[in-house]
Amino acid sequence: MLAVTILGNNSAVPAFDRHPTSQVVTTDGTSFLVDCGEGTQIQMIHYKIRRSKISHIFISHLHGDHYFGLVGLINSFGLLNRQQDLHIFAPSPLQQLIELQLKVADTTLPYNLYFHTIRNEGVLLDEEKFSVKCFHTNHRIECYGFVFAEKKRLRRLLPDKAREFDIPSSFYDRLTHGEDYTKKDGTIIRNEQVTAEGAKGKMYAFCADTKYDESIIPHIENSDMIYHETTYLNNLAERAAARFHSTSSQAAWITKKANVKKLIIGHFSSKYDTLEEFEKEARSVFENTELALEGVTYLV
Amino acid sequence: MLAVTILGNNSAVPAFDRHPTSQVVTTDGTSFLVDCGEGTQIQMIHYKIRRSKISHIFISHLHGDHYFGLVGLINSFGLLNRQQDLHIFAPSPLQQLIELQLKVADTTLPYNLYFHTIRNEGVLLDEEKFSVKCFHTNHRIECYGFVFAEKKRLRRLLPDKAREFDIPSSFYDRLTHGEDYTKKDGTIIRNEQVTAEGAKGKMYAFCADTKYDESIIPHIENSDMIYHETTYLNNLAERAAARFHSTSSQAAWITKKANVKKLIIGHFSSKYDTLEEFEKEARSVFENTELALEGVTYLV
Repeated sequence: MLAVTILGNNSAVPAFDRHPTSQVVTTDGTSFLVDCGEGTQIQMIHYKIRRSKISHIFISHLHGDHYFGLVGLINSFGLLNRQQDLHIFAPSPLQQLIELQLKVADTTLPYNLYFHTIRNEGVLLDEEKFSVKCFHTNHRIECYGFVFAEKKRLRRLLPDKAREFDIPSSFYDRLTHGEDYTKKDGTIIRNEQVTAEGAKGKMYAFCADTKYDESIIPHIENSDMIYHETTYLNNLAERAAARFHSTSSQAAWITKKANVKKLIIGHFSSKYDTLEEFEKEARSVFENTELALEGVTYLV
Repeated sequence: MLAVTILGNNSAVPAFDRHPTSQVVTTDGTSFLVDCGEGTQIQMIHYKIRRSKISHIFISHLHGDHYFGLVGLINSFGLLNRQQDLHIFAPSPLQQLIELQLKVADTTLPYNLYFHTIRNEGVLLDEEKFSVKCFHTNHRIECYGFVFAEKKRLRRLLPDKAREFDIPSSFYDRLTHGEDYTKKDGTIIRNEQVTAEGAKGKMYAFCADTKYDESIIPHIENSDMIYHETTYLNNLAERAAARFHSTSSQAAWITKKANVKKLIIGHFSSKYDTLEEFEKEARSVFENTELALEGVTYLV
């Protein structure tokens, strides 16, 4: 199960009780934090996010509304006596900034903090059950989107078939991993005879801050869900482009062209006190759109 | 009028809806921000603080719970198109940290930001109506308390006396500034004959983070009000001392010994979910004590 919980859905300045960008991506008991605007740790308390489950933090770019809450979270993890390793993936010079702040406070963390500086597109993590890749987005400063992909699941056992071929149940686990079974008389029962294709792994893409740019499509194509920013409505498309941001209909067009199943829109400008128009505009292009609402979990 | 509004009353880690240290000191239309923990700008919105009125920010020390919200506030001021100068007084290397963060975001502020690095005790501001001084406190890293002092008010005109000596009302303003009046016949009416002593200016001291240390007394002596930290209750006095913090009864003893009129206690440890005991303990030593409650304004 892949799921995304929104902690902050606003752009630069906090307003109307909306907070700067942050979201938690969860897959099979592992939690990733994506961006960490100011106040993220307070939002985590508010929405009862289990902070100790966060093992990796991905920062898209070094505009403050995407990372000013990170040093406070790192610090609080220390004060709460965290023991587990913490990995941070971010563009340079975030490591330098954080380390300087820890140094001037004379802080020694009780856990290992590993920085991984992102310098280009590519694979950031490749684990048994999932991978995380990053790709360039088109923003005013160096900025990355992230793709979280669950790996293909195990093959699904067909118990009636397995019994029919007299395969002992102790071998079932190996069947789900794709092995053939050889009977005592030498007959080979091919795996495909007793199992079916496993479920396809889900894929979620966080498209960070970006102006409308179709060059991100190959990276997010066929995702089950993406998050795309929509700082403005379409009547401010020029302003959006000038500031390297997108509108709701642009977010929806990218989603449609990339053959994505579901779109979550966020990063709303503080000039808007309500959000209905964002949803309406996006849905007029791509129906399966949801507003990124703080505290809400979206299943991929 | 001198007043203090509490924005954050908790120590290091946010908890129980309490926030890290920040308070607004207001005198005659000028507002000073003292410390700026993470989320201060959100607390300002919450409590309807007029952010544009803040002209000076004083940071006591570089532990994160006292300054992690500063860069976000500086950034938001820019996005809100602030025009007025902003002065920041803080120990080194805060200037370097903030400037690096603005630089990596490619941010140009629309207002002038002036850094004043505090290197020792002394006068930070000496204006017509008030002064601000800083003094060392006894903490784990370099740390300063701040004394806000209104200057003595103008002399108070005694109208009956002024009329008795036939002083024209057009001269009254100069009388309140302490001038003598010379009649046409050369007779001098001494100022003291027609005016009384002006009201004494109020004095407020923010004692920052500190262990119990009587060496701060000369700096805060005879204040009308002080804020003193009380991270722990007295049964944890040893822990308090080891961490360079104070207990409630220690805060109260300092207040009493310094002949201060009123004490506000804050910087409560996150291990306490309620605050009644802090008040009770402090009042057993010094009756005129109040808890620093977020959103509450205390008149000096």
